[in-house]
Amino acid sequence: MVEDAKLGWEKIEWAQAHMPLHTRIRQRFEKEKPFRGQRIGVGLHLEAKTAVLILTLRAGGAEIFAMGSNPLSTQDVVVAALGEVPGIAVHARHGEPQQERLARIDQLLDFDPAVFVEDGGDVAWRLAERGQVPPQLVGICEETSTGVERLRALEAQGRLPVPAIAVNEAPMKHLFDNRYGTGQSVWDAILRSTNLLVAGKTVLIVGYGWCGKGLALRARGLGAKVLVSEIDPVKAVEAALEGYTVVDLEAAMAEADFVVTATGQPGVVGERELRRAKDGQLLANAGHFGYEIDRAALARLGQAFSARQGITGYRFPDGRTVYLLGEGELVNLALGDGHPVEIMDVSFALQALSVEHLVRHGRGLRPGVHAVPAEINAEVARLFLATVRR
Amino acid sequence: MVEDAKLGWEKIEWAQAHMPLHTRIRQRFEKEKPFRGQRIGVGLHLEAKTAVLILTLRAGGAEIFAMGSNPLSTQDVVVAALGEVPGIAVHARHGEPQQERLARIDQLLDFDPAVFVEDGGDVAWRLAERGQVPPQLVGICEETSTGVERLRALEAQGRLPVPAIAVNEAPMKHLFDNRYGTGQSVWDAILRSTNLLVAGKTVLIVGYGWCGKGLALRARGLGAKVLVSEIDPVKAVEAALEGYTVVDLEAAMAEADFVVTATGQPGVVGERELRRAKDGQLLANAGHFGYEIDRAALARLGQAFSARQGITGYRFPDGRTVYLLGEGELVNLALGDGHPVEIMDVSFALQALSVEHLVRHGRGLRPGVHAVPAEINAEVARLFLATVRR
Amino acid sequence: MVEDAKLGWEKIEWAQAHMPLHTRIRQRFEKEKPFRGQRIGVGLHLEAKTAVLILTLRAGGAEIFAMGSNPLSTQDVVVAALGEVPGIAVHARHGEPQQERLARIDQLLDFDPAVFVEDGGDVAWRLAERGQVPPQLVGICEETSTGVERLRALEAQGRLPVPAIAVNEAPMKHLFDNRYGTGQSVWDAILRSTNLLVAGKTVLIVGYGWCGKGLALRARGLGAKVLVSEIDPVKAVEAALEGYTVVDLEAAMAEADFVVTATGQPGVVGERELRRAKDGQLLANAGHFGYEIDRAALARLGQAFSARQGITGYRFPDGRTVYLLGEGELVNLALGDGHPVEIMDVSFALQALSVEHLVRHGRGLRPGVHAVPAEINAEVARLFLATVRR
Amino acid sequence: MVEDAKLGWEKIEWAQAHMPLHTRIRQRFEKEKPFRGQRIGVGLHLEAKTAVLILTLRAGGAEIFAMGSNPLSTQDVVVAALGEVPGIAVHARHGEPQQERLARIDQLLDFDPAVFVEDGGDVAWRLAERGQVPPQLVGICEETSTGVERLRALEAQGRLPVPAIAVNEAPMKHLFDNRYGTGQSVWDAILRSTNLLVAGKTVLIVGYGWCGKGLALRARGLGAKVLVSEIDPVKAVEAALEGYTVVDLEAAMAEADFVVTATGQPGVVGERELRRAKDGQLLANAGHFGYEIDRAALARLGQAFSARQGITGYRFPDGRTVYLLGEGELVNLALGDGHPVEIMDVSFALQALSVEHLVRHGRGLRPGVHAVPAEINAEVARLFLATVRR
Repeated sequence: MVEDAKLGWEKIEWAQAHMPLHTRIRQRFEKEKPFRGQRIGVGLHLEAKTAVLILTLRAGGAEIFAMGSNPLSTQDVVVAALGEVPGIAVHARHGEPQQERLARIDQLLDFDPAVFVEDGGDVAWRLAERGQVPPQLVGICEETSTGVERLRALEAQGRLPVPAIAVNEAPMKHLFDNRYGTGQSVWDAILRSTNLLVAGKTVLIVGYGWCGKGLALRARGLGAKVLVSEIDPVKAVEAALEGYTVVDLEAAMAEADFVVTATGQPGVVGERELRRAKDGQLLANAGHFGYEIDRAALARLGQAFSARQGITGYRFPDGRTVYLLGEGELVNLALGDGHPVEIMDVSFALQALSVEHLVRHGRGLRPGVHAVPAEINAEVARLFLATVRR
Repeated sequence: MVEDAKLGWEKIEWAQAHMPLHTRIRQRFEKEKPFRGQRIGVGLHLEAKTAVLILTLRAGGAEIFAMGSNPLSTQDVVVAALGEVPGIAVHARHGEPQQERLARIDQLLDFDPAVFVEDGGDVAWRLAERGQVPPQLVGICEETSTGVERLRALEAQGRLPVPAIAVNEAPMKHLFDNRYGTGQSVWDAILRSTNLLVAGKTVLIVGYGWCGKGLALRARGLGAKVLVSEIDPVKAVEAALEGYTVVDLEAAMAEADFVVTATGQPGVVGERELRRAKDGQLLANAGHFGYEIDRAALARLGQAFSARQGITGYRFPDGRTVYLLGEGELVNLALGDGHPVEIMDVSFALQALSVEHLVRHGRGLRPGVHAVPAEINAEVARLFLATVRR
Repeated sequence: MVEDAKLGWEKIEWAQAHMPLHTRIRQRFEKEKPFRGQRIGVGLHLEAKTAVLILTLRAGGAEIFAMGSNPLSTQDVVVAALGEVPGIAVHARHGEPQQERLARIDQLLDFDPAVFVEDGGDVAWRLAERGQVPPQLVGICEETSTGVERLRALEAQGRLPVPAIAVNEAPMKHLFDNRYGTGQSVWDAILRSTNLLVAGKTVLIVGYGWCGKGLALRARGLGAKVLVSEIDPVKAVEAALEGYTVVDLEAAMAEADFVVTATGQPGVVGERELRRAKDGQLLANAGHFGYEIDRAALARLGQAFSARQGITGYRFPDGRTVYLLGEGELVNLALGDGHPVEIMDVSFALQALSVEHLVRHGRGLRPGVHAVPAEINAEVARLFLATVRR
Repeated sequence: MVEDAKLGWEKIEWAQAHMPLHTRIRQRFEKEKPFRGQRIGVGLHLEAKTAVLILTLRAGGAEIFAMGSNPLSTQDVVVAALGEVPGIAVHARHGEPQQERLARIDQLLDFDPAVFVEDGGDVAWRLAERGQVPPQLVGICEETSTGVERLRALEAQGRLPVPAIAVNEAPMKHLFDNRYGTGQSVWDAILRSTNLLVAGKTVLIVGYGWCGKGLALRARGLGAKVLVSEIDPVKAVEAALEGYTVVDLEAAMAEADFVVTATGQPGVVGERELRRAKDGQLLANAGHFGYEIDRAALARLGQAFSARQGITGYRFPDGRTVYLLGEGELVNLALGDGHPVEIMDVSFALQALSVEHLVRHGRGLRPGVHAVPAEINAEVARLFLATVRR
């Protein structure tokens, strides 16, 4: 257990050393103690980068109640390390049953936080269900687009009782994490799990949103020929003028060596497309949900086998084989370490400052979804710029 | 004169051959004759690409009155060619006195057009001054951001009597013309007027808006090391994550071989910056107005001399020399041929369809500035996409 | 053990599925049986890609004696799998004492092979020491530059009794494996072991040979600003004209976030350079030997600590920390999976065909170092081209 | 005439200002006067960059006799300017009859130079014909590969009476002028003569030698999709691993918007290929000779017409039109200004130092073709590096 905590600290310290915005913010928080006497709830992926956010909030004087947002992403060594810090209570266990996790949501609300920070909207949803607002609660910070959508649904039903900040929608988050975070980490995951050459290969990017732009940019940077399939004609024109080959998805399946989806649409690579897959094709998903590549169709079309750690092969009756990475789940989490540390430094800096904003000014805000204040976005931009400009 | 017209037709046909959207639209206009019995006024740069727009409108059945938007951009051979077409009256002459041009604005309004298309807002401004609306007039199409700003000023004063479409603001225009049109044509102009190598040189892009992004992309594509100076921290972060070196403008002046401005701000490269210029530095402007590089400051700092056609050298007392391209005016027009043909095909396709929209539906629109209808933008996107996708 | 073999076969089959040149060559070998009645010795890194080469040679009718070239690169599951194949005898164990390995060299020579293929020259060196040539031996194939150097040394001393083919020097090997193999796999190893963002960072490539070119290309492809330090002025000019910033190594240490060495020179990043390292700098080596970054100097300058798996941090008295990846050994082997599979498909195709050449024509060749025959290089080029061209 | 000279000086001074190697070399020559009392003959394209070389040789104390190497490249204003310099005699006129030029070769030989510098080998050929060596002649410097081939032919016949330096073969020339000089200047010429967009277009590069590499690199840098056709499989693999699409020439003709040849082979784009040309295709040649695109075939296949200055259109009976730039001659000379100034600074620096080498050491060299001494190449590399490194 002590050994676990030691490993956890090694990971946390590595992250901390590469999260200079948090270092800056923590130094100010330590002086100003904006959260003195306050409680903060955290429901996020409990790994090292999140731990740095939690420690930063703690440095601001808050008492913390932390739980995981997904039992599979919880890292027990990180939990062990955080458990050593006075004022931080962590309730999470890798692989814990869904039942336990749900019970923890009630615990978090009973903790009576001033603010809770979460990823996906489960806590906010439970808050609406319970119908009773913890007395100290002044606001919510939400990390993901899915969570923001759920908050907007609650708001539309008149069931969101406090202000909620849509961190996901700040320019410093959505302009950067998909393009540069997903762009790099998806290719990192593909490279490390396949050991295959990208140079000279044909890569098909399905969807040319922010993720798709990052995926295409890095595929080119690795020497691939890049095909792009995109249904929005304006985005498709942009892909063409960047020099990518804009294609019809179904036809392009027959020539792509790698296919990476980032559309947000279920079954975008479905049976019709899979029937035309090139022999040896590798399929990976970079979208949030694991439904873009139709696994059921794959199972119908071919005989599944374990091809390599994290990779399932499907042998078609005509002799072709295709490979699915990470069961079609978000490949940079399934087979990699998620976003690069610096990207989370930026996203969580927006969180830390949004929490501070709610604590300082939340009582004056109407219930409902709010944008990250422009000056917080600008401050994070300036802090991050200082680390990447000459 | 006949000889002139022949040269004019050669230019027009070259443009026409590379404006497939106009070919498609003209074919439909020829069948449907949406402008039968209507008059259309045109006040644009009278060169070959504009002639193709005029011929397209004419093919739709309109009677045309065309004048120039700037006496210096009028090409007499193109005027001569258009003059041969029944139903098109062109009133323009290269270098005509401002007096004459102003008189023509009144002629255009007296022509009583259903719609006029212009560039810069002079006709709309005069319309407001006259106070009396030509009886047939149903609307205005404006090409530039400057013109749109003037229309908005008139609207705010309650002096815009008809609907006006802000073509400049359509995604298919502002997402593409600056990045890919300006990006290419500015470097074309710099290469052809200097005969200098870009590979291995240091290029400083001042301003990282859409123009700056295009300029930086093409500079890198020519093998330069690219520095970017930008005051908006979010844009500066984007430049850094694209791999450009984000710098302080003043300090970077001392190491840049080429400096290209695209900020929209007067005097952004002013005396303080110019004092630090690297010996041999080339200065060019890609912004709309010729005031971004402070010429007066250059004249104070150095002894001017003609260095090469279109290039003025300034010898500083300490021995350094800097070179100003095209007197600091928009360099792709001053020393080149403006936007590539295909870029104008897209912009003018938006114009042709917006004119049609006004003729068909303008009577139902409130006076004021309107966006290009989303379906027109999408149709132009689809048409253009068909020319650049596989 | 059976379980081990199963895992081994999974790895071998993954490699085989992505080594189409071997598939082609094996099919021909199966028909023609060029090695019928012959014995072949193999002394290479005993992992999956090598297993595919061994199986290809076996398919040609050879009886195989295989040993490892480095006890640390031997994968026991692959050994277990190969052990199931009649006609293949594998003598290797991960981590075996150097003593055992040396004894095996004698076994390999006593096996009396017609040809042996190796990596590093140890078997050839022992052959020269023993002074007596196995009766069937007609030639040697050598994979590495180090091995070729040792063969040339033996040749110069008149101690190389048979022809030896310098596979490393074939254009299809040296033009591609460093640039595209090292270029990708080194960044793969850095990404997976650090989880850090490369976009916007400053990367210093030390040495602009073939490896350096690949490293710089991929660093740019990941969004980095790339600095290059190179002592040969012609190569340095090439780096500059590719748009990289050519710098003085010592000065550049103070601004680089990542430093990757590929010079072949011991101590190229030595104490003087390390004293100027930027705080947080990551140091990795992509050169064959682990001596380019001076570890002893690091230990003198800072306090070592384990920073993350495979990464040692060094805390300097002034507060700076630098990180050394994989103890300064070739980082794509120390922290990754070595060259991409397809790169080894090409290199080992040259080996398989060179072995065939020696068996068919070796008796007619003079003792000494020979180039890979041009027609073999061209055939491998054609076969590989067929997999990457449209 | 005085006016002409003034224009000529403007051009020369522009070139001089961007030829820093010549400035350095001239300063040394002015001090050391290595050519004091010597005569030097020059037979090169008489334009501004050549004038700078001539002035540099003159600064070293030489008396100069200069003639053109091609009547069409002679610029009379530059001749007028040089004519004002004591010690320089220029004998050239734009468009002069071949007869006159040949007479001038005899004049040049009768001038009895210590060294002559030429481009193409005409003077050397005449020297061999005359059979009698001017008494002072110690050597020849040749600029082009064609010229070097002719010198080698003379040498093989025993008819080359003096040492000749193959400047073309120095690494600092052949590694850079084609890739970075041709690469940029060909696209400059295409852009300025067509005003067409490159982004999103399909560009077919025929031949992937040094020229082809530069052409492909710059095409990608302008946003094109790049196809490469190449018969050497090793080069074709390199193109594929750089991410270009390697294609069959004939098939690719049907999809390319731009075709640029750089193979050195006559008729590489011949009737069979042209029959499949995409409608609207632009054809340009970047190879030394104007025979790579078969003009006779074009004339057979289509009706020629003048499409734009420097561009001939060919209308095929089936309605397709293709366009030939600059009559198929080397397009950067036919429609542009040739290599960028800095590239010629490097090439002519090799010339100036090779002339010095011959004057100082030529008497000790055997007759025949010699390489540029390694230390001259290295010195030029160092001098140029100083201008492009940080």
